[in-house]
Formats: sequence, C-alpha cells, structure tokens
Amino acid sequence: MSLVVQKYGGTSVGDADRIRAVADHVARTRRSGRDVVVVVSAMGKTTDDLIRLANEVSEVQPPREYDMLVSAGERMSTALLCMALAELGVAASSFTGSQAGIVTDTDHTKAKILEIRATRLTEALQEGRVPVVAGFQGVSTDRDVTTLGRGASDLTAVALAAVLGAEACEIYTDVTGVFSADPRVVPDAHRLARVSFEEMLEISAAGGRVLQLRSAEFARNHRVPLQVRSSFTWEPGTWIVEEDATMEQAVVTAVIHTTSQAKVTVSGVKDRPGIAARLFRALADRSVNVDDVVQNTSIHGTTDISFTVPRTDLQTAVDVAEALSGELGANGVQSDREVAKVSVIGAGMRSHPGVTATMFETLAAEGINIDMISTSTIRISCVVRAEEVERAARALHAAFELA
Amino acid sequence: MSLVVQKYGGTSVGDADRIRAVADHVARTRRSGRDVVVVVSAMGKTTDDLIRLANEVSEVQPPREYDMLVSAGERMSTALLCMALAELGVAASSFTGSQAGIVTDTDHTKAKILEIRATRLTEALQEGRVPVVAGFQGVSTDRDVTTLGRGASDLTAVALAAVLGAEACEIYTDVTGVFSADPRVVPDAHRLARVSFEEMLEISAAGGRVLQLRSAEFARNHRVPLQVRSSFTWEPGTWIVEEDATMEQAVVTAVIHTTSQAKVTVSGVKDRPGIAARLFRALADRSVNVDDVVQNTSIHGTTDISFTVPRTDLQTAVDVAEALSGELGANGVQSDREVAKVSVIGAGMRSHPGVTATMFETLAAEGINIDMISTSTIRISCVVRAEEVERAARALHAAFELA
Repeated sequence: MSLVVQKYGGTSVGDADRIRAVADHVARTRRSGRDVVVVVSAMGKTTDDLIRLANEVSEVQPPREYDMLVSAGERMSTALLCMALAELGVAASSFTGSQAGIVTDTDHTKAKILEIRATRLTEALQEGRVPVVAGFQGVSTDRDVTTLGRGASDLTAVALAAVLGAEACEIYTDVTGVFSADPRVVPDAHRLARVSFEEMLEISAAGGRVLQLRSAEFARNHRVPLQVRSSFTWEPGTWIVEEDATMEQAVVTAVIHTTSQAKVTVSGVKDRPGIAARLFRALADRSVNVDDVVQNTSIHGTTDISFTVPRTDLQTAVDVAEALSGELGANGVQSDREVAKVSVIGAGMRSHPGVTATMFETLAAEGINIDMISTSTIRISCVVRAEEVERAARALHAAFELA
Repeated sequence: MSLVVQKYGGTSVGDADRIRAVADHVARTRRSGRDVVVVVSAMGKTTDDLIRLANEVSEVQPPREYDMLVSAGERMSTALLCMALAELGVAASSFTGSQAGIVTDTDHTKAKILEIRATRLTEALQEGRVPVVAGFQGVSTDRDVTTLGRGASDLTAVALAAVLGAEACEIYTDVTGVFSADPRVVPDAHRLARVSFEEMLEISAAGGRVLQLRSAEFARNHRVPLQVRSSFTWEPGTWIVEEDATMEQAVVTAVIHTTSQAKVTVSGVKDRPGIAARLFRALADRSVNVDDVVQNTSIHGTTDISFTVPRTDLQTAVDVAEALSGELGANGVQSDREVAKVSVIGAGMRSHPGVTATMFETLAAEGINIDMISTSTIRISCVVRAEEVERAARALHAAFELA
C-alpha cells in the first residue's frame, strides 16, 4: 500500500474543532486506500506560552530543561488527535520523538537527527494503525529529550517520509501554498503550482516561512516530493518536486523578504589567512547561524568583514566578535538591528544573466540603497534598510512580472 | 550523605512564584547538607485542563492516549523547577517517569509500579545534581507512557524514597498536615503531630485527601517515614511513622468523611458459593475500585449484596452488575449516588471496645440513619445520606473529644 506522511502545523491543530477536522482528513486519506503517518505540532501558541512561563520562572534556562519543557506541546497534540481518530473508528497510536526512534545529537534546542529507528512506526503500520508522531523532537544519544529547533516539525515529517519511503510528504498549514511573494505585503502575489527543490531551498533560506530551511534541504537531499497545503481549505496547494524538462522555467519564481535579520561588521581586521576562519569557527561554536558574509577587498592591509545573523543571535554574535577583537587585530565591532533582506529566486536565472542588473536598477529607481549583496546560481539577495524592504519587494514583484 | 525525597503537589508549583519558592526550599535543604530527590505534580489545574480538552476533542479516549496526554503536565513542572534551581546555582536535572526508571504494568490510567531502575537518579546524585522527577507516571513493559492514577505523584515519591533508601519522604501540599477532621467542615479540628502508618492507611482509605491511599500503603509496607507539610508556611506538619510504645494512643485519632461515594445494590441474588466471587471478579476486571461490601444473611435462599464505589466508577459498576444479573439470578440492580461515608480511626481502638457503641449512639442522637457499616481493627465506617455526613463528622469529632 502506498504511504503518505501528513504534517499538521500549530494552527491546523489549534483547537478541538481543528483537531477533529484533521482527524476527518486523515480518515478520508485512509479510506482512499493509502497508509498515513501523521506528524503534529503543538496546538496554536502552546510552545510560545511555555517559553513565556519559563521566562517568568527563571532567567537561567539550561538547554536540556528547555527541551524537556517545550517538547510537551507536541505530545499533547498527538494524544488528542489519536482520540479524535478513535472516535472516527480509525485505529491510531501516538509516538513521542523518542518512541518514534528519532535519535539526535546532544545539541539541545538545535539538535540534529543522527538516525531514525522507525521500528515502532512500521509495526503500527503493519497492524493497520495510523502512527501520530510528535514533531520537533527526538531523543539524544544521552537518552535526553531534544528539540530540533523552532519550526522543525516539518523536518520530522520530511525525515520520516524519507526513511519510510513515503510517496509524498504533505505539509498542512494555514496558507494555501508557496507564493510568488508574501501576499500581506505584495497584494498581487499568486500561489505557485510547482517549485523545484532548489528553488524551495533558496526560498526558505531567503526567509520564506512556509517551509523550514532544514526541512527543504533534507527534502532536496533525499528527493522527498513535498506538497504544501492548507488544512482550512484543503486546496491542492504547491508541489515541491525535482526540476524536470517539462517544468516551466520562469526567470524569477518568487520575491522573498525577511525582516528578522541583523548585521554585524568587524572593521579594520588584519588581511591575513585564517582571520575569517577564526571568527566564523567561534560563531559556529556558539551555534550562531550566520547568513550572508561580505568581505571587502583589503586596503592598506586591513579589511572589514560584515555578516548577517537572525536577530535573536545578534547579541551572541557581537559578544563573540568583541571577545576576538584583539586577536583579529580589529579596530571595532558595529551592529545594526534595522536591516532586512530581499531576494529574487528562480531556476531560470541560470540562463538569464540580466536578472542582477534588473534587480539593482529596480531598487535604484525606488531610491533604495543596497547595503550587502549575495548570490547563488538561482538567487540574488540584497540587504537593505528594514523600513524599505516591503517597498523593495513590491517593486521587484512588479519588475519581474510575477503578478 | 543522608537523602530526603521531597514531593510538591499541584498547588505547591501552581505558578512561577510558587515554583521559585519551592526551588528556594530545595536549595536550603541542600545547604543543610542533605541530598534531595524532588518529585513534582503538574502545575495547579493543568491536568484538569488537559482532561477538559480531551473531552472537547473526543468522547472516545483510548487509555494509552489518555496517559500520553495527561502525563504532559508533570514534565513541564520538572523542567521549570530545574530552571529555577539553576538560577539559584543548584545543579538539577529533570526526569520523566520513564527516564527515572519507573517501570509499570500496561494497565493504562491506573498502572502499577513493577520495578524502579533508578540508575539515572543515582548517577545524578553522585554528580551532585538534584534529580527532579515527574510524578504520577512511568513507562510500561510495552514502552508506552503510563500514569499511576490521580494523586499518584505521592506514590512516585514514596516508591523512590523506598528504593533509594531515603531517610524520609516529605510530602508538600497546601495544608499544614493531617487533621483530626476536615477543618472546612469541623472548625475545631486540629493538626496531628504524629500518626502511625496503620492510622494513615485507614485515614486515606476512608477518604482523607492529604495522602493517596496507595502511597500510604506503600509507605507502610516499606516503612518509609513520611512527613506531610505545607509548602506555603513550611511549618513542621505531621509525621507518619511506625507505631511505637512512646506514641500517644488516642482511642480515636481522626474523623474522616467523604462524599465521593456511590452505592450499588444487587438484590435477590441466589445464596450460593461463587456468586459474590463472580461479581467482584468482573468488577475488578473492569478496574472498579470497590470500597465497602455488605451482604445480608440469606432469607428464602436469596440475599442482597451492596457495595460502595467511587462515584466516577458508578456507571461501570452498574453496567457490570446488570450484565451479570441473569447469571447471578438477581432480580434487580439499584444504585444511589447520594451516599457518603464517615469513619472514626484510631490505633487505641484495638483495646477500647466501646468505640462502636459511642459512634452509633452519637449518630442516633443526631437522627442520622446508618445505611452500611464496615470495620477494621482501628476503624469504624458508616455509610449515611450525603446531606447528613458533615453533621455526622462534627458530632463524632465532639463525641470523641478531638477538639
């Protein structure tokens, strides 16, 4: 029997009615003759509430304890969904990350999956049961509860789909798919019927919030066909699949912007081999997710290194840079919380070298200054002032005729 | 180093302030030179909220899923308390029932502890850490999350104290100890400084809510010295210890009443060997906790069997009795939700045969009719109308001069 993994996000299981609607859909999928493994997030704002509670209790939050706390929400969702399925006559069993065999490293709050021992899930499937797995969590090699980072229930779903050989992984959320831009900011943005793995990866990396970056990466690496759909309208949504000849190769597929960025500049650094390595190793050791890096050509033997990080990592990044300042020979560390990034993404860009020029011209015409630039073969990103980024997104969406 | 197990109930960890107060007390205990293992309940009404949520979601609640759901609250408390301890510089680690090695049978929602493999707890103690264990839960031999029944966080604490060889188990709650009667009903009830294990067992069995019955039983069987104390005033509380010669042997120590009872009568049953066994085996198989049983002397070859059960078990008990009605030759099953039980308890009763007479005289003088009577060597219980039980408790408390 063919198998599908269905992942339901926090709003999709936000209250008792939503949970029953999800149970209905799982039951329908079963009736259509397919096996289902379900992955659920915590209900609505449960995880945020738990984090707020932790902040009330203590400023010191050992990561192991943080994981024990915030993993509770998903467990509740699994049990509640199994009850709703039982009422519909669908046999189902809940599984924590640990019970599902999701073994991770010991890097609490950002653990990486090392292995999935899915024995209990395959046993449940063989017994005709629907396994309902708590997303976002696993068990470490030290037998402690770990979490995989915010939004990582997607990753749980994609990883299980890969391991179980599912024909598809359906990500149910409160939007109807992947859009050509954020519809709240760009009113004429449209839903994309299909995007390639590579494009999805760049969209997530650029700050698109429909699918978590690590999940997009995992899906691409393991070629797990994904579908992003709404659990409110159950419309077809967006397929994320391998690029093929029949796929329409738009020059630009989507314009993505994100405001959750901050910039750090370490200035007057000695232009010597190993200096950048020293800095970025130290940042990695503190689990700072560095996004874009720019280093200007050296003048008078010194250079400036700028990089962007998620705003939540800014203080750690500044602390690391300042602690290393003497060793790097730097004459200062500056930071800026008010930056944002706008990116254009499209697989067709590979064969259309004019995209960069169009992007810069469009921003120039809007009087928007570009602070940093980074590119991949199918993406161009510009760091701009935070207050200008929505205007930039609208202008680029129009310029690349995405409406 | 001497070891104490401290258990904190739901109100003791009811909000962020209470959790910090508990952390303070644990830190003080550590500073006094003792090792501590902490057991916590879910915060305040968390478990009730989860049960309400389950009822909103589904009428069908597979016991395995119920346990997965309601065990979540204790996990949160453990993590939050560890954070509060970390802020005070006390190294602590949270443990789920499973991580604490509490292995149970597979009787979900009422699982029994089979074994405690406390390796991780003793390791933590050796490392100078305070283990904080989620009460009320374990892991079954099928590797599923189980719960031990409502109020069973006490049991977790007592069982850990026994296994770890603790010098005492301190049960922290929102009352200052064990009272001679419920102070809300009997205004001149006083706190008992010491009660014997046997008395505590009878008090819990009779419906005293300070300590769960199974925990009292476990403490008695394993001779774990217990102290019941308030986490709000930190007063000395009540010691529950082995009876010894120096202990004051009051004829009656306490008057306990409970209104959470219901009565079932199976009437016109054939008076034949095996009839009662058949009925009560069937009730046990459905996990109905039968409390008192009364069978009248047979007249004309038939008899009536009456028994009391917790009100929550009434429907199941009636279903079982009705299903067996034909087989038992019964001519009817009656039930009554409006009964209550009042008990007098005292180790000194063994050598004072007049207690029964005093009890019946006291109730008679109040015009309170006795429906059922049961006794042990240190307890006499009477089932009365629910609306008369508080008056009965006050009259008995006065008659036995407990004020």
